Amino acid sequence: MTAPALSALSALLGDRFSTARPVCAAHAQSETHIRTGLPDAVVFPETSAEVAAILRICAAHRLPVIGWGAGTSLEGHALPLHGGVSVDFVRMNRVLSVSPEDMLVRVQPGITREDLNRELRATGLFFPVDPGANASLGGMAATRASGTTAVRYGTMRDAVLGLEVALADGRLIRTGTAAPKSSAGYDLTALFVGSEGTLGLITELTLRLHGQPEAVSAAVCAFASMGAAVDCVIETIQSGLPMARIEFLDPAAVAACNAHAQQNLPLAPHLLVEFHGSPAGVAEQAARFGEIAESHDCTGFRWAEKPEERSALWRMRHAAYPACLASRPGATAIVTDVCVPISKLAEAVEETRADIAESGIPGPILGHVGDGNFHAILLIDSESRAEAATAKALASRMAERALRLGGTVSGEHGIGMGKLAYMQAEHGDAWAVMGTLKHALDPDNILNPGKLVPPHDAG
Amino acid sequence: MTAPALSALSALLGDRFSTARPVCAAHAQSETHIRTGLPDAVVFPETSAEVAAILRICAAHRLPVIGWGAGTSLEGHALPLHGGVSVDFVRMNRVLSVSPEDMLVRVQPGITREDLNRELRATGLFFPVDPGANASLGGMAATRASGTTAVRYGTMRDAVLGLEVALADGRLIRTGTAAPKSSAGYDLTALFVGSEGTLGLITELTLRLHGQPEAVSAAVCAFASMGAAVDCVIETIQSGLPMARIEFLDPAAVAACNAHAQQNLPLAPHLLVEFHGSPAGVAEQAARFGEIAESHDCTGFRWAEKPEERSALWRMRHAAYPACLASRPGATAIVTDVCVPISKLAEAVEETRADIAESGIPGPILGHVGDGNFHAILLIDSESRAEAATAKALASRMAERALRLGGTVSGEHGIGMGKLAYMQAEHGDAWAVMGTLKHALDPDNILNPGKLVPPHDAG
Repeated sequence: MTAPALSALSALLGDRFSTARPVCAAHAQSETHIRTGLPDAVVFPETSAEVAAILRICAAHRLPVIGWGAGTSLEGHALPLHGGVSVDFVRMNRVLSVSPEDMLVRVQPGITREDLNRELRATGLFFPVDPGANASLGGMAATRASGTTAVRYGTMRDAVLGLEVALADGRLIRTGTAAPKSSAGYDLTALFVGSEGTLGLITELTLRLHGQPEAVSAAVCAFASMGAAVDCVIETIQSGLPMARIEFLDPAAVAACNAHAQQNLPLAPHLLVEFHGSPAGVAEQAARFGEIAESHDCTGFRWAEKPEERSALWRMRHAAYPACLASRPGATAIVTDVCVPISKLAEAVEETRADIAESGIPGPILGHVGDGNFHAILLIDSESRAEAATAKALASRMAERALRLGGTVSGEHGIGMGKLAYMQAEHGDAWAVMGTLKHALDPDNILNPGKLVPPHDAG
Repeated sequence: MTAPALSALSALLGDRFSTARPVCAAHAQSETHIRTGLPDAVVFPETSAEVAAILRICAAHRLPVIGWGAGTSLEGHALPLHGGVSVDFVRMNRVLSVSPEDMLVRVQPGITREDLNRELRATGLFFPVDPGANASLGGMAATRASGTTAVRYGTMRDAVLGLEVALADGRLIRTGTAAPKSSAGYDLTALFVGSEGTLGLITELTLRLHGQPEAVSAAVCAFASMGAAVDCVIETIQSGLPMARIEFLDPAAVAACNAHAQQNLPLAPHLLVEFHGSPAGVAEQAARFGEIAESHDCTGFRWAEKPEERSALWRMRHAAYPACLASRPGATAIVTDVCVPISKLAEAVEETRADIAESGIPGPILGHVGDGNFHAILLIDSESRAEAATAKALASRMAERALRLGGTVSGEHGIGMGKLAYMQAEHGDAWAVMGTLKHALDPDNILNPGKLVPPHDAG
C-alpha cells in the first residue's frame, strides 16, 4: 500500500515531500534512548487543507501518519513505530491572528513557544506555558505539556481554547469557540489535547494569553528536609498566594547547578519561587511567602528583585537538565516524570531519593513542586546495559510509587512509547475506553499507531 | 422490554424502586416550559455498585436511563424523552473524604452545592462554582455548569479533577487521579464533564477546593452605556486584576431588582464586582478597579465593604431571576444563555436589547460579563401562543447572533432539549464526531437518548 500512497503524496506536495534518507532519519530522532525505524517519507504541509489531503491519501492506502513538531518529546511520541508518513509542521508556523481584547491568539501548530512570545511582545500579552524546551505549540497541545508556570497559569489543558483538527478520514473539524467558556456538547478540545496524534492532527490552535506581569519577584531558599520544603509549599498554596512558579531542587541537583552555573548554594533541598503581579501585590506576596518559609526553618533566604539576579536564578533552573548531564560526563539521561497529590510529595521524593541512592546511579531530582510533579534525571553510562536496566527498574518503581500514592505516571511528558506499559495500571478499564474512542475515530489505526491506547487487536 | 427490566430493578432495589405516578411525575418536571412524558420508573441507588447494576439491567433490556440530580436544569436535560428509568441520586449525597492538604474533596453525585459548602465550612476551604440554583454536583458536572464566580475560579471543567463513571454496559471506570495534573492519556474527565448523561452516569467526583478568602470586598457602579461597562471589564481583565465576580445588569434588570429588593439604583447599565484576597490585596485591587471604572465615566460608585452591605448586594443579584419574574405577574420565563468573545459582548448585548425592545416582550438582561456570558429573561404570558412564538424567535436570533460573533449557543446551561437545534450550526462536522463517540460508548443508545448528539440513525 505504501508506493501508491507515496506517489500521491509526492504529486500533491512536490518538493515538500521527501523520502531522502537524511530527512527520514531526522524524523526518527528523539531526545530519548528510544529508537525506531525510519518513516517511509516526510511531508511539509503549508495549510490545513493540505494536511486533510495528506490524511485522505494515507487513509485510502492505510499508511500510518505521525505528526512532527519540534522533536523535543521525551517519550518518543513522534517516532514512526510502524513506518508511514511523518507530517512535519515546520512550514505551518504562523500567527494567524491576535485578539488583544479577548486575550487570544490563533496560531498554526508548528510555531514554537519562543517564537510565539517574540511575536506577542509588543502586545503586552504573553503565552505562559513553559515546558523548558522550545517546543512547538501543536506538540505541546498534543502531549498536554506544562512546566514551571503551571502552578499559576495551568497546563495546555487550560491554555487551549479551541482547535482545528484533521481527522483520520480527512475531515477538518473545529472544536470550541472564541467565547471564554461553553457548555455546548462534548469537550472535544480537551479530548484532542493530550491525544498524542492518535485521534487527529492539530492544524490550528486558539490559545489563551495573559497580561505580561507589571512586576516580578523571585527568591531562593534552602530547607533542612524535603518534608519541610513541601510543608512550606502546601501552606503557601493554602494561603491563596498566587505563585507564578515554585520549583524544587534536591541536593544532587543543587550540586550540579552550582558546578554548571557558578553558584554557591548550600547542598540542601531548595525552593525557587517567583511572583507576578502589581508592584505592591508582588511585594506583599513575597513578604508573606518569606514568613511562611521562615516558619518552616528555611535558611539562606535570598530575594532576587533585580531583573539580572532573577534571570541568573531562572537561567540556572532552566539549565538544570544540561547541568545534571554535565555532572556525569558522557552520560545519557533517562528523564522520569511523575506527579502525586501534594500531600504525598515529600514521601514520594524521599522514597525515590533513597531508591536512587541505593542503585548507585546518579539521579538528581527537580520538580514543579506546586503541582506535585517531579523528575529524576537518571544518568547512565550509555554503553552499560546493566545501568540501563537499573535505571529502567528505578523509573518503573517511581511510576508504581506514584500510582500507589494516588498520582499519575506522567505529569507532563505524556505517554508516547516510554509510558505505555503503565497505562493499564493507572487507568484500569478506562484504558480500554480510550481504545474504544480511538477505534471509533480511527478505525484503520493510521494515526500514530502503537501509541497511547491498548494494542489495536486487544481494543 | 420494559416489564422484565422493571422486575429486575425492583428485585435489586426493593422500596428504592418506584413506579408510583407522583414519583414518576416528579421526575418529569422541569424548571422550563419543556415537557415530556413520564419515566417508567424511578430508582434511588445508594452505591456506585448499585448504579452499575441498574445499568447492566437496563442494557440487557435496552431500557433508557436518565440521571436525576436536583432537577434544576434549565434545558430539560433530565426529562425522559423516551420513557425509561430515572436514576435519582438523592440518596448518594455524601462527602466521602476531604483532603485539606491537597485541597480536594471526594463526593457522591447527589450532594448539593450548598450542602457541600456547609460541610466544608470548618476546613477553611470552599467549593467556588456557583450557578445560582442549589444544584447537585453530579448534575453540575454533567452540564458543565458555571456561574458568577467562573471568571476567577473557572467552571466545572476546571473544578472536577476526577470522576467515577458507570458506563452503558455497567462497567465502573475511574478517570483522573488525585495529582493536580496529568498527561497520561485521553482526558476522559473532560469528556464526561458536560456529556449530560449521554456517555455514562457519574457516580463519584473528586473536586478542587479553594481557600476561603481572608478578605472580600464588593462594589456596584453604573455606566452611561453597555459599551462603556464592557470596556471597563476588558481593561480590568487585561490589567490582571483577579476579580472574583463581575456581573452585569441592564436597566430593565436593575428596575426589577430595585422593585424586588427595595434598592434605588439608577436605571442604567450596572456592574457588580467582588474581590477575594488578603486585606491589603483586596484593598489594592478595589482601588485599581475604581480608577479603571472612573476612566470609563462610571457613576454612583459604591463600595460594600461591610459584610451586611455585601450580602445585600449579592442577595439582590442572586434574586434577580425571581425579581424579573415578579416584574410581570403571572408570567413564565424563558431563560436564554449565550456566550461570546468579550470584545463582542457590547455588540451582542446591544443588538439583543434592541431585538427584545422591538418584540414587545419584557426581557431584562443580566450576565457574567467577565466570561462574555449573558442571559435574557424573556417574560411571556404562559397562555399566549403568540408570545411563546415571539420568545422562541428571540432566543433563536440570540443563538445565531452568538455564533456569528464567534461565540457559543450555551455558556453554562448546557444543551438538553432546548439547544439541540443549534448544535449543527455551532459545531459543523464536530457534531457528527460527538455522535460517533456516543455510539462507540453507548451503541444501544440507552443513556439519556434524544439529547446532545445527532439523532441515532443519523449518526
